[in-house]
Amino acid sequence: MRPNKPKKEETSVVIYGKHPVLEKLASDPSRIEKILIKDTLDRELMAEVKLLASNAGVEFVMTTERTLREIANGGTHQGLAARITAVPYIELADWLVSVKEIENPAVVILDELEDPQNVGAIIRSAVAAGIHGIIIPKHRQAPLSGAAYKSSAGTIDKIPLIRVTNINDSIRILKDNKFWVVGLDGSAKESIWTQDLDMPICFIVGSEGDGMRLKTGELCDFLVRIPMANNVESLNASVSAALVMYEWKRRIQPKPKKK
Amino acid sequence: MRPNKPKKEETSVVIYGKHPVLEKLASDPSRIEKILIKDTLDRELMAEVKLLASNAGVEFVMTTERTLREIANGGTHQGLAARITAVPYIELADWLVSVKEIENPAVVILDELEDPQNVGAIIRSAVAAGIHGIIIPKHRQAPLSGAAYKSSAGTIDKIPLIRVTNINDSIRILKDNKFWVVGLDGSAKESIWTQDLDMPICFIVGSEGDGMRLKTGELCDFLVRIPMANNVESLNASVSAALVMYEWKRRIQPKPKKK
Repeated sequence: MRPNKPKKEETSVVIYGKHPVLEKLASDPSRIEKILIKDTLDRELMAEVKLLASNAGVEFVMTTERTLREIANGGTHQGLAARITAVPYIELADWLVSVKEIENPAVVILDELEDPQNVGAIIRSAVAAGIHGIIIPKHRQAPLSGAAYKSSAGTIDKIPLIRVTNINDSIRILKDNKFWVVGLDGSAKESIWTQDLDMPICFIVGSEGDGMRLKTGELCDFLVRIPMANNVESLNASVSAALVMYEWKRRIQPKPKKK
Repeated sequence: MRPNKPKKEETSVVIYGKHPVLEKLASDPSRIEKILIKDTLDRELMAEVKLLASNAGVEFVMTTERTLREIANGGTHQGLAARITAVPYIELADWLVSVKEIENPAVVILDELEDPQNVGAIIRSAVAAGIHGIIIPKHRQAPLSGAAYKSSAGTIDKIPLIRVTNINDSIRILKDNKFWVVGLDGSAKESIWTQDLDMPICFIVGSEGDGMRLKTGELCDFLVRIPMANNVESLNASVSAALVMYEWKRRIQPKPKKK
């Protein structure tokens, strides 16, 4: 029996599906280690992928439906997958330096989200809303797996991802750097529609089941609710996150020029 | 061998997961045919479910992890499932009568969504946004399965669901009834933030992959885009839908009283 390799943490990730693989080939081929193509893939698409890969100097191999199914772990691979190098996380301190010139930067903290599809969808919405960074805890959090990658529709590499060990420590550091911390709470008095957002801001997105943790809630400067009709108690985590980030975008970004 | 029963279309649906089952027991027990409880369920929870079921006059049976896993088809059942009677679809004509007294009713058309999780999440957001009805095509559309039910977090029964054979016919009927039809189109000039929404309105939510179909787009009175930074092309279907419905809610509902 071969000994197991020492387990490295997320040294590479597999993405799958036609759009994610083609998008990656077009936008960032240098991070692709290898493309896997199903041997019975539609001939036209196969020729296209091979040509793009060759032009970009990316290795490709033919493989079976079975292998792709294992790689995609139940997801829809559409006959294509790619192994790419690790997610390039950055340090919070470095990120803070990088946003020094931005008047009112915005960052989102994912607080123990369990569903990789939600994580991917939130990253996609964050990039579309022009959010400046996403803080992802190291533990008790869905990894940036192939499912998260697919759900992000190739946007994971378009936003700084900051991985931290302790969310509450990160919140304190953000506060020391003049960020205001906004948490979602269904029982808050203030609505996201009336909350002032014109400041360096940190939004906290709680987990699907339990919302924000108590200790984290206590660290918030503002608690706001998303107005809901019909006694609905909560929304899907990726929907809540998008509504908050887009409310920020609608009112704050792009910042109107000062006279 | 027993002959197969004649296949009825969605005569019942199975929901699963702790929250959906308890919510259903609390809000609408008469529609539950039977509750399935895992034989090794946490004792306190089991006692609670049995008590609630008994009080509501709902039958329950003990079952195995294996059976529940099959029922949930890969979803997280948390030891509980319930078989409920069919989704009570209504006819478009009846719905139109039911909203006659509402000044500016809003309805959402799901245009061939494939992912039941997205369908469930959109229904949940629609209920929370106070939308008055959802039109669901009969064909080429994710069914209101257990997965959609779970993702809707028990909101499926809180909004009129209108099942139609042909979306484009339904759009024409809505137009005849003075509804204005708004479709999402990434290349539209008008933004959802500036589009007038103060009218009887029908929003069309396109499929995850291809967006709205061409023929359907041609029937729209207005095409609007959701503003996106960083050249993001599209958002998750349930996110797009929520942003549009909440923009309607923010501006239109509840309608400010006329002086």
